[in-house]
Amino acid sequence: MFGRYVSPQIRDYILQDPVHQRPGGTLREATILFLDMRGSTVYGEKKDPVLLLHDLNEFFGVIVPIVERTSGLLYRYTGDGFLAVFGAPTSPPPGVDHAHAALETAGALAHAVRESGERRAAQGLTAWRIGCSVHTGYVACGNLGTAERPDFTVIGDAVNLCAKMEEGNKGHCSDIVASAATVERLRPTPTAPPRFPPGVPEPFLVETARIGKRVEPTTLYYFCLPDSSETPLPEPAPATLPRDTATASRA
Amino acid sequence: MFGRYVSPQIRDYILQDPVHQRPGGTLREATILFLDMRGSTVYGEKKDPVLLLHDLNEFFGVIVPIVERTSGLLYRYTGDGFLAVFGAPTSPPPGVDHAHAALETAGALAHAVRESGERRAAQGLTAWRIGCSVHTGYVACGNLGTAERPDFTVIGDAVNLCAKMEEGNKGHCSDIVASAATVERLRPTPTAPPRFPPGVPEPFLVETARIGKRVEPTTLYYFCLPDSSETPLPEPAPATLPRDTATASRA
Repeated sequence: MFGRYVSPQIRDYILQDPVHQRPGGTLREATILFLDMRGSTVYGEKKDPVLLLHDLNEFFGVIVPIVERTSGLLYRYTGDGFLAVFGAPTSPPPGVDHAHAALETAGALAHAVRESGERRAAQGLTAWRIGCSVHTGYVACGNLGTAERPDFTVIGDAVNLCAKMEEGNKGHCSDIVASAATVERLRPTPTAPPRFPPGVPEPFLVETARIGKRVEPTTLYYFCLPDSSETPLPEPAPATLPRDTATASRA
Repeated sequence: MFGRYVSPQIRDYILQDPVHQRPGGTLREATILFLDMRGSTVYGEKKDPVLLLHDLNEFFGVIVPIVERTSGLLYRYTGDGFLAVFGAPTSPPPGVDHAHAALETAGALAHAVRESGERRAAQGLTAWRIGCSVHTGYVACGNLGTAERPDFTVIGDAVNLCAKMEEGNKGHCSDIVASAATVERLRPTPTAPPRFPPGVPEPFLVETARIGKRVEPTTLYYFCLPDSSETPLPEPAPATLPRDTATASRA
């Protein structure tokens, strides 16, 4: 039962060593992926809670299996979405980069929701919309809370920043937002343009802004899927983005 | 281990009946309590994640035992706070009202953090600040997610609304915000003024407003602890609030 209410890999990590059960954690470089269902608050205002839970579970039935096929771990549900982490508590398999894997997963999630929307529309149901935010940074991975009532999670500025990135993503009506910290890892050489994973189109907007009450500005890349799933996806070719994007620019 | 990573009472409920392990849930009237640490995002921007996790755990060491002494259950950590629920999945003990218990707990949490702040200030550390939001309503209580990877939680408009209420609470720099749905349950008779729990002062502001993108307005009561813990707490006497508060008014 424990390996269902937390991810089985997290269960194994916790049970592997008593140190992994103590409050506190270790520093890891990882890529964070937040997924949110758009419009769920407005939708939920008039909805019977049990039916809302049923609808959310149908939604999760589409998206959770996609994460489970990747090297990412579903850390926690956020009500109408989830937090998944790539690269913590353990490193991804050899040859897999956590930033690349997380962005590829965001693309796969956006496509799956887009396709499900067409099926839903055919049945007269409202299509779901999601937003994914992807950010790479150092996190503390371990037990938050008390020794008697811990939660195995990731903590740090990278997690807070990634959660906040979704606000801009919603504002731009884009499907995915990724930070420069993630995108920089997709350059095969320091001066080469980033190579976006299969299924992730070229970003349509690159913007540098201060997020929330933060002091440091962050450069963000915004991605939109093509309008219809019948439109062929762009080939995952090297992108032609400027190496330095100090101001907002439409790619 | 399972009874630590979820609350022991939730573990017992899940294990009691296979039905409690299936996706979906049941309708319950319950009181939701969200607690947030104020300013943690700004504080976390420059902080080593492992030290931040350590600091958060010190904070949770003060507040989590307070919830554990009540009829409320800690459902999930939200990073710099938590979601606790009173009245779900099981009813509170006889004679205990979930709305009263939740508001009393919010008062106890605010006092404990205030006192810890004085100890911290004496050591040259920054005092923690929290905000609590309390709302009563119908929720679906059960398993969110997939059969293979569920989370036992509460879902519904009441949960979304309670989470959003903290924004106004932060704006007013108050310690606690409670909705009319909670406060109405504190009237001993339908026309009597509400009797606030011990430790909860009279509200200093009653405001009716639309929260977020919601259609329906909500009446909210804002509470502030006295400036210093040396100031004696007001006696938990019957409040003298207007029965109907269609517009904002300072109590």
